[in-house]
Amino acid sequence: MSGIKKKKKLAMVIFSGDLDRLMAAFIIATGAAASGMEVSMFFTFWGLRALKKKALTGRSFLGKMMGIMERGDISKASPSKYSFGGLGRWMFGKMIRAKNVSTLYELRKMAIDLGVKLYGCHMSMKVLEIPREKMIDEINACVGVGFFIEKAQESDVHFFI
Amino acid sequence: MSGIKKKKKLAMVIFSGDLDRLMAAFIIATGAAASGMEVSMFFTFWGLRALKKKALTGRSFLGKMMGIMERGDISKASPSKYSFGGLGRWMFGKMIRAKNVSTLYELRKMAIDLGVKLYGCHMSMKVLEIPREKMIDEINACVGVGFFIEKAQESDVHFFI
Amino acid sequence: MSGIKKKKKLAMVIFSGDLDRLMAAFIIATGAAASGMEVSMFFTFWGLRALKKKALTGRSFLGKMMGIMERGDISKASPSKYSFGGLGRWMFGKMIRAKNVSTLYELRKMAIDLGVKLYGCHMSMKVLEIPREKMIDEINACVGVGFFIEKAQESDVHFFI
Repeated sequence: MSGIKKKKKLAMVIFSGDLDRLMAAFIIATGAAASGMEVSMFFTFWGLRALKKKALTGRSFLGKMMGIMERGDISKASPSKYSFGGLGRWMFGKMIRAKNVSTLYELRKMAIDLGVKLYGCHMSMKVLEIPREKMIDEINACVGVGFFIEKAQESDVHFFI
Repeated sequence: MSGIKKKKKLAMVIFSGDLDRLMAAFIIATGAAASGMEVSMFFTFWGLRALKKKALTGRSFLGKMMGIMERGDISKASPSKYSFGGLGRWMFGKMIRAKNVSTLYELRKMAIDLGVKLYGCHMSMKVLEIPREKMIDEINACVGVGFFIEKAQESDVHFFI
Repeated sequence: MSGIKKKKKLAMVIFSGDLDRLMAAFIIATGAAASGMEVSMFFTFWGLRALKKKALTGRSFLGKMMGIMERGDISKASPSKYSFGGLGRWMFGKMIRAKNVSTLYELRKMAIDLGVKLYGCHMSMKVLEIPREKMIDEINACVGVGFFIEKAQESDVHFFI
């Protein structure tokens, strides 16, 4: 009877912390939200990085590595390939700036503005020792796998990125 | 009333340009098409490589890297792991030839023959500077994220590879 | 009429052999099974490693590499990132032990106990030369892509990991 079509739902697991995969995730999320879908993103493992506030990163090798793991935020995420001493990030960033594609921060902002729900994986936060206050305020909730499974069951489209 | 079962649909995002992941993607795609599913593959980021025509690749380190990024085609794609100076590709290729598993080119040909729809991501083509004429003629269309989201919503099975 | 809700089904392709991705896969699988979903995991390519019995691994470079490819089992799987000469595994393992998160073996055991179906990809077993007897007894079947596509079509949630 009703002419109202039920909104389709998209549930994404964001496992990767690579710049390019995070970009793909946010492009899909914002595109889906702009098309009227209800979008939930679950950030787990390295993907949690995408929810961190801007932060400084150590310079020494171990410091840098620890920084990536402990304090890294999305401005430090490198493409999953071609990251020869940062060259990959530089090239990719250059290409992206040159073509005027939105950056990751802008994409995250856009996702929030479009009502995309952002969830942090509680267990990963504990394991990677990322306290809630180091993450952006716009996170909807820090949840467990049970919450995610429930959301996944009521969703129509799923991706693991 | 009708005994005709609606065809199930598979929508895949092919993000990776790694030989092994591309093989897995085409094996799933051809298997699904052979089982009567309607299959759409969306090639984005590094995955676009799988839609390129054969091409020569530079030999120097930077040339090789640039070649991979700018001119690389699927014969140059290396497995995502174990690519110690090409050793990974050699070993994997050897194993595959030895066991007579179809190669990537053959899998792509098979996908096309089985009616799998191939779509290139328009934005990635711009960012990676891959013009349409460097890509195979069999691509169905170069599309944006909106087109993909629409296809995803009417599909039953989804993968991000 | 019936108040019985049909069980939702989850079908996962486990392509990766990386410790962190395998952990994520088993955490999702056990979480879904615990929530009452019917879960099928299809292990293909490097993911097959997760179904192997414990095994020794060679020490030399090539031996180690071959060991990873030919004899590697999940205790040798390294996180997909930060595996600087094993440091990544050590750090990740340390973090995990420190926080008392279940290890991969425990997660696999839990999945089996919860009734998660484990399938090995027959073609990958041939290509990677992994005989059935080197794999755990609890595998439900070694199957081809057609079997997987059928399962995927009757499933509600899908992931490629």
